[in-house]
Amino acid sequence: MSVVNPAVSTKPILSIDSTRAVDIDINDVTHFLLELDALKRVNRRSYVTGTTRLENSAEHSWHLAMACWSIAEQFELDVNHEKLLKLALVHDLGEIDAGDTFLYASTRSTAHVEEREGIARLQNERGNGITNLSEVWEEQETGDSKETQLLKVIDRLLPFLLNLNTEGKTWIELGVTRSQVSGAHAFIKDSFPSIHDWLSENIKYATQQGWLIDL
Amino acid sequence: MSVVNPAVSTKPILSIDSTRAVDIDINDVTHFLLELDALKRVNRRSYVTGTTRLENSAEHSWHLAMACWSIAEQFELDVNHEKLLKLALVHDLGEIDAGDTFLYASTRSTAHVEEREGIARLQNERGNGITNLSEVWEEQETGDSKETQLLKVIDRLLPFLLNLNTEGKTWIELGVTRSQVSGAHAFIKDSFPSIHDWLSENIKYATQQGWLIDL
Repeated sequence: MSVVNPAVSTKPILSIDSTRAVDIDINDVTHFLLELDALKRVNRRSYVTGTTRLENSAEHSWHLAMACWSIAEQFELDVNHEKLLKLALVHDLGEIDAGDTFLYASTRSTAHVEEREGIARLQNERGNGITNLSEVWEEQETGDSKETQLLKVIDRLLPFLLNLNTEGKTWIELGVTRSQVSGAHAFIKDSFPSIHDWLSENIKYATQQGWLIDL
Repeated sequence: MSVVNPAVSTKPILSIDSTRAVDIDINDVTHFLLELDALKRVNRRSYVTGTTRLENSAEHSWHLAMACWSIAEQFELDVNHEKLLKLALVHDLGEIDAGDTFLYASTRSTAHVEEREGIARLQNERGNGITNLSEVWEEQETGDSKETQLLKVIDRLLPFLLNLNTEGKTWIELGVTRSQVSGAHAFIKDSFPSIHDWLSENIKYATQQGWLIDL
């Protein structure tokens, strides 16, 4: 005979191990969450569509995670979604200390040094629960997994898309040339041909519009 | 005998199925990415710490994903990280059409209707590759998995933390009372006791500071 007792909840319980919890000071937890809040204060060079304000690195990281997820499914890519999303979420975290570096800036090639130091600081910050934070960041920085390759393509596609849809405002302000943009996106020809074709076509369009300098 | 041929790259190839790719118009892909961009234009009621500007729902979603990940690891919670991160990433997507609803607004209880319609629109938007978008959103809205329970706790903790660290600006502006805040966080007593204790203590502090009305 089965007994149904409606007073007993069948809801799965979020089981907090009280022995473990007693050792964790919530003031440390919230300290780390406030450290993360700083990424919302790092401005990039692109404008958010439909606004006159610069995009920040936190909302960009959200956009990148969503875009990678959608595109990975759409193209039926053999990638691990958990890994892909984690790479996207942390990929700009080093900018909290280092600031954002424009794709076409002369300091671009050395930016990773300061960013790596910033990640090391966050890794050791009190209240950080992500034990492999440096490792995940390092993978998106220097790794060559399929997830990282996809991330790098979409991380270039998104600011291009925003610049294209804000009448080239960023390109015009910073005097960017057609060949700079072509060069920075050349690697996509091998890893994602159809996106590369789309970019090439729209680089032409942006140049015709006078948004990119025809050089 | 093993033969090493250094000319052959050992890099894992991001393999795009060209048969599939030929059917996907990148203009559709970018259309959907621009639809997502709209979440950056949805302002919430809390201020980003160290600024005088309101937080938007895209950067909040990034913060929530990071916070859930860190806390899940720190407390060794038995949750699926991929599921947890996906819930966080989409949890406010319905606001693109519906707008953000303040926690203490009278329209709070009916906000989910418009948000659900917004999600249905995005689900069917051309270029969306996330086949289970509505399902993932529905889980965080009406589900009771451990991942959803954790998400709901941290989704309350974060704006509280921002309000506390911006001298109660939001609470003061909107005339929020101590009992409103206590009531909205009461459910955390069962699901995450140590966070509930921390909140109770800081509700007292915020009331002493005059940031919450003592009612």
